Amino acid sequence: MAPSVATNSFSVTVTPREEVEASQSHSRLASEYTQLQRNRLNHSPPLPSILQTSFQVVDGPPTSAAGNPNEIANLFPNLYGQPSVSLVAGHSDQVKNQSKSLKIGVVLSGGQAPGGHNVITGIFDYLEERAKGSTLYGFKGGPAGIMKCKYVMLSTQVIYPYRNQGGFDMICSGRDKIETPEQLKQAEETVKKLDLDGLVVIGGDDSNTNACLLAENFRSKNMKTRVIGCPKTIDGDLKCKEVPTSFGFDTACKIYSEMIGNVMTDARSTGKYYHFIRLMGRAASHITLECALQTHPNIAIIGEEVAAKKLTMKNVTNHIADIICKRLELGFNYGVILVPEGLIDFIPEVKQLIVELNEILAHDVVDEAGVWKRKLTSQCKELFEFLPHEIQEQLLLERDPHGNVQVAKIETEKMLIQMVKTELDQRRQKGAYRGQFQGQHHFFGYEGRCGFPTNFDANYCYALGYATGVLLHSGKTGLISSVGNLTAPVNEWTVGGTTLTSLMDVERRHGHFKPVIKKAMVDLEGSPFMKFASLRDDWALKNQYVNPGPIQFVGPSANDINYTLKLELGAHFPFQS
Amino acid sequence: MAPSVATNSFSVTVTPREEVEASQSHSRLASEYTQLQRNRLNHSPPLPSILQTSFQVVDGPPTSAAGNPNEIANLFPNLYGQPSVSLVAGHSDQVKNQSKSLKIGVVLSGGQAPGGHNVITGIFDYLEERAKGSTLYGFKGGPAGIMKCKYVMLSTQVIYPYRNQGGFDMICSGRDKIETPEQLKQAEETVKKLDLDGLVVIGGDDSNTNACLLAENFRSKNMKTRVIGCPKTIDGDLKCKEVPTSFGFDTACKIYSEMIGNVMTDARSTGKYYHFIRLMGRAASHITLECALQTHPNIAIIGEEVAAKKLTMKNVTNHIADIICKRLELGFNYGVILVPEGLIDFIPEVKQLIVELNEILAHDVVDEAGVWKRKLTSQCKELFEFLPHEIQEQLLLERDPHGNVQVAKIETEKMLIQMVKTELDQRRQKGAYRGQFQGQHHFFGYEGRCGFPTNFDANYCYALGYATGVLLHSGKTGLISSVGNLTAPVNEWTVGGTTLTSLMDVERRHGHFKPVIKKAMVDLEGSPFMKFASLRDDWALKNQYVNPGPIQFVGPSANDINYTLKLELGAHFPFQS
Repeated sequence: MAPSVATNSFSVTVTPREEVEASQSHSRLASEYTQLQRNRLNHSPPLPSILQTSFQVVDGPPTSAAGNPNEIANLFPNLYGQPSVSLVAGHSDQVKNQSKSLKIGVVLSGGQAPGGHNVITGIFDYLEERAKGSTLYGFKGGPAGIMKCKYVMLSTQVIYPYRNQGGFDMICSGRDKIETPEQLKQAEETVKKLDLDGLVVIGGDDSNTNACLLAENFRSKNMKTRVIGCPKTIDGDLKCKEVPTSFGFDTACKIYSEMIGNVMTDARSTGKYYHFIRLMGRAASHITLECALQTHPNIAIIGEEVAAKKLTMKNVTNHIADIICKRLELGFNYGVILVPEGLIDFIPEVKQLIVELNEILAHDVVDEAGVWKRKLTSQCKELFEFLPHEIQEQLLLERDPHGNVQVAKIETEKMLIQMVKTELDQRRQKGAYRGQFQGQHHFFGYEGRCGFPTNFDANYCYALGYATGVLLHSGKTGLISSVGNLTAPVNEWTVGGTTLTSLMDVERRHGHFKPVIKKAMVDLEGSPFMKFASLRDDWALKNQYVNPGPIQFVGPSANDINYTLKLELGAHFPFQS
Repeated sequence: MAPSVATNSFSVTVTPREEVEASQSHSRLASEYTQLQRNRLNHSPPLPSILQTSFQVVDGPPTSAAGNPNEIANLFPNLYGQPSVSLVAGHSDQVKNQSKSLKIGVVLSGGQAPGGHNVITGIFDYLEERAKGSTLYGFKGGPAGIMKCKYVMLSTQVIYPYRNQGGFDMICSGRDKIETPEQLKQAEETVKKLDLDGLVVIGGDDSNTNACLLAENFRSKNMKTRVIGCPKTIDGDLKCKEVPTSFGFDTACKIYSEMIGNVMTDARSTGKYYHFIRLMGRAASHITLECALQTHPNIAIIGEEVAAKKLTMKNVTNHIADIICKRLELGFNYGVILVPEGLIDFIPEVKQLIVELNEILAHDVVDEAGVWKRKLTSQCKELFEFLPHEIQEQLLLERDPHGNVQVAKIETEKMLIQMVKTELDQRRQKGAYRGQFQGQHHFFGYEGRCGFPTNFDANYCYALGYATGVLLHSGKTGLISSVGNLTAPVNEWTVGGTTLTSLMDVERRHGHFKPVIKKAMVDLEGSPFMKFASLRDDWALKNQYVNPGPIQFVGPSANDINYTLKLELGAHFPFQS
């Protein structure tokens, strides 16, 4: 059965790329796959026991919100307070329902994370096995696909080449939001046109907030379409008690750790470079922390700690330089330093500098003589002068279309190398450092978003997807698919759905309350950070590098899960086991 | 048995790092290893059948040189013309010798390549099994370790934590040469002091040339120390008929291909970025070619082709821009482009520019007004003006201690992004391009030099090492360890030694003939390039990306070997198999 593609019934611009996408000419052909890809294609992820037989969907007690429950209740009058649910063994009251066929749409939202395809195959297999005659639509290119009613019917053939494969290319993703009345109306028209019983939104914190808005909107209009979210982000910052981790984090961290481990071995073999490695993860430093726990770098900077201690660029620079000097005394002129992508967002003085620069540059010309700098506060001027010349230029010249400094483009790892070099040169002049500092810079980002999902992510995503089928089939809406007990073997995993409203708080923006799922930051009192903090002094001066090697899919190491999850769930921490 | 460390008997400066190295405090502790590391530790690489039982070392016919045999004969009067050897089944005349114990030194020379540790364990295991009572010394930090007589005795315990592990950190490496009379004398003193029967030099083309000089020198003085080389380099540019590949190439290309495949999947999922990926490999483009065969990028630039066609920067830029424009017409605003690290070394006009810049900047000041540019020839001036501002600055400002332009520091992938962007902007103004070009830059280098060796590299290196034991035990010198028939199962591999003089030619430098093992460049008439050339037009416009995934050590894909080797050895090419 060839994929059937809808024509666009709304008035939107169709770009050439979308035309080609519609003809599926960029989709995968499994015939071109390598042996490993084919092995993974034919791998069937195990399901939790509870999903293998008969189960009931049991309501818990009414739920509240993560903060400001009154405001959340006002924003979600139809959804607020509904119970979270869990699956328990036994014959269901919904048995009759479970013979009913469903029409479901699924959308991938935001950046890629390994395992997204398995969520979709989990939904698909649920429908095939437990709701025969159902239809699964994949909206193309993210939420815009819902608004533009651009979709592909997901058949066995369409899905097959993506089983256990990385990427989001089965239906692609996008970063649009469905927020304005006009956008909500477009979404309504699409789900009505396709007669959808349910919509699955696979995304991060913002996308799940958006899923909840859609669920509320559909319910407020007595529409039959239910909405279920799925926790996706390699950054690992969408999690709570019921949702122990977001998918993709495990794989991304293991890919980065493979690379870090290789660079560590290289550093030790060569003996003359400090490798500064920037890791993806803008808002939170979970990736850096997990990679540190996996590989034992000499230094790992955790943004949340920098913010909590109100550190300055100079503090961070000195901290690194201090360790480099101590290592030299011990005879080591090499090392590995992990830096979170979002580091400078955590440094208050840098944020302030950027605010001032945006303000000044909106109105003034940057004159060669530097007269413009007089408008900076003295503190910001001092910081600006402290920054390497290259970074100064980047701040002044590379602006986004709104004229704002493009913080994301700043190569933090290069900046740190230059600042550390300057600091060490000054120490050399004072006789306090006699080494030859040579920095090498790396950014590990895109490499980790689309790798083959680890067995953990493949299994977790498959269960998450299968569970969304259950939740939609039993008529639930406004929930996020929740699979728990993740440090146990897969058959012992728990399955349920958590109310999205219970994860929410509000932020005040432009005089309005805006619902948000708060990002889960690195908890400086939590087990992963505490473990790191207890070990890092040893890692700094001794060389206890660990090279985890490439992800394996078979063999004894194939089912390892990440340290963050193990530590947060209280499992034994296997260092030196 | 704890490692015994010699005190330094020569007058050399001992830096703090070396003191610490000497105390082994940075060496590995297997107790800290991950499960995968431990699995690999306990893996025994299979040996070719010929090495498992009794064999004879059989001389072939006299050999000549790769070029200028008379000059090579003059430079190596004691070695020139000696036969290469091969191992055949049967009881050896050297049986008596084979009971004799040996004293062997081993040194790692130059950049890391996965598998180096396995060469050493291969030598060690040969000595343990077939020359009981032997001693293996590891010279520390490369050839400098020989000159300074810095070594560690390699015991079972010292070697164990490095079995099948990446890196060179067991004894570390270095880039020194042993060339001057003084240096040769130091080496003589060391091998005499340690009473060495043999020395194994694990290195690339230069290091093996150096090995041959040492062999010649020792023989000319009737010293008993024999010298055997081993072919190491991830760049893949040390190979010939008898030495089908250098070790490390297989692993490095697979690590880079894993990353490239992930980036490709990301590119297709996101649909908005052109990823420019620079790959290690300065002198030759084998890595880029192999990674292209593994992953099917839209464009892969092969330096040797650029040189053969005498392409300019503008040609290369236009070629990329043309494909980007054609892809846009097909609806694709994304892609992956592989660039060899050494690209600009292959472009004649860039080489000329650098020569002129070095000349001018040695004598003149770079004035703001640009008067200095008048000294450039018009052609070089035009090229200089064509280069992005950032690259211009890099050429002018970043000089090595001799005042020369640091070509190696130029981020070619960034330079190409900027030049392609400029070209596309010009085309946009003419109405010939309507897309939004966004480039992402990557450099994959250090990540690939120290990964866990693939099964192929682990086995190949172990056989190479074991073979050096055989060659030294049978009294051979001036050979490079040669293991062949590599596309067959390991037990069918052939084993022998090839005279280093037969790989040599001379270059005239400063009025003298200097022996060199010529780098094996990508052969534009060879099977790997021809296969690539026959497929690249399809890869450019269609999206036939392959994501090979992470290296596996068990399972059906674990023993795949690379395409370059398969194609050069005439094995079936398994695309679309």
